[in-house]
Amino acid sequence: MEASRAIAVYIYPGLTALDAIGPYEILRGLPGATVQFVAQERGPVTVDSTFLRLHADVSWDEVKQADILVVPGGNAPSQMRNPAALAWLRQIHATTRWTLSVCTGSLILAAAGVITGGEAATHWSARDHLRRFGVTPSRARVTRQGKIITAAGVSAGIDAALTLAALECDQSTAECIQLFIEYAPQPPFYAGTPETASPEVIARTRLFLK
Amino acid sequence: MEASRAIAVYIYPGLTALDAIGPYEILRGLPGATVQFVAQERGPVTVDSTFLRLHADVSWDEVKQADILVVPGGNAPSQMRNPAALAWLRQIHATTRWTLSVCTGSLILAAAGVITGGEAATHWSARDHLRRFGVTPSRARVTRQGKIITAAGVSAGIDAALTLAALECDQSTAECIQLFIEYAPQPPFYAGTPETASPEVIARTRLFLK
Repeated sequence: MEASRAIAVYIYPGLTALDAIGPYEILRGLPGATVQFVAQERGPVTVDSTFLRLHADVSWDEVKQADILVVPGGNAPSQMRNPAALAWLRQIHATTRWTLSVCTGSLILAAAGVITGGEAATHWSARDHLRRFGVTPSRARVTRQGKIITAAGVSAGIDAALTLAALECDQSTAECIQLFIEYAPQPPFYAGTPETASPEVIARTRLFLK
Repeated sequence: MEASRAIAVYIYPGLTALDAIGPYEILRGLPGATVQFVAQERGPVTVDSTFLRLHADVSWDEVKQADILVVPGGNAPSQMRNPAALAWLRQIHATTRWTLSVCTGSLILAAAGVITGGEAATHWSARDHLRRFGVTPSRARVTRQGKIITAAGVSAGIDAALTLAALECDQSTAECIQLFIEYAPQPPFYAGTPETASPEVIARTRLFLK
């Protein structure tokens, strides 16, 4: 009999869409996967640009357990200030086999007391914020601490979810998903991290992030 | 004065979410960008897994022009059999500066008569289908034919959209977006194309695709 895998993707206004959809597209390929997009209330949730709405099919009240919890970044401060959000995340995390954050999602997990120390990844621009929680910002693209996997900014969720897929199932299954999404990336430029981008590009991007 | 850039993302039941959201996350970062998710009718559109709904804010009838048109893949046959869909795509394509397909989106563009020959990229498993339209399947991750840019499977839309961003604006702008999404990929495995995946992984993935 095939294992059943309940995946909960936490969504909220202002999240970065690719943070959620990258891991979703991978984890839905796990054998027996069911995915729920969970928000405070059911209904459409407006994401990063205000141009896109993702639909939450279930509310916090309806979800008490998940095998895999995905916490995307974006407007993380709105969640970090919401005690009910943090309580829900703590409660679900207590039931998971894996908890995955992407980008500034790790700040939300730190604010929830799910990440309490050690190393975690986050968006490069938010590394200092992690330190305020006593967490050391990792420079790695994917960082694991027990059952908690943290990814660096936005697109790093894809690498992290493939890593998680192999841990949850096996490498062959993860490779099938990688082949399905034809993930053999060829970035046309070399500016994906502050270590490789030019000072001008870093300065312009910081303005955009404000 | 900043240029205004109207981006239309074509959505339909059964599309592959990452095909649409990868390019969306990049193109929304272009200066002056507005993005519309366009479907046959307004409202929620169920995508690949049935677990996710994206919200269409406008219908075909409401959109007559776009500077950039994005056509994701997924359940491409449903669109290839829909004359009204193909007519809408032809009409919008006639008004664009750039038309971008991802994955089997290039099959839809070929069925619409937008791609009529030459080379185009598509999902590796769909290369033979392109030939039926007199189009040579490219093995490149991103292929350009005039104002038409075609990406290989799913995740290749990210590389293609960054390429498009540089063509539409300049390389520095594209690099800022690359840095924003921290796109310095590190796939944990080496199975992203049929040329690098093992025969067992290819066979399992073909079953999954059926």
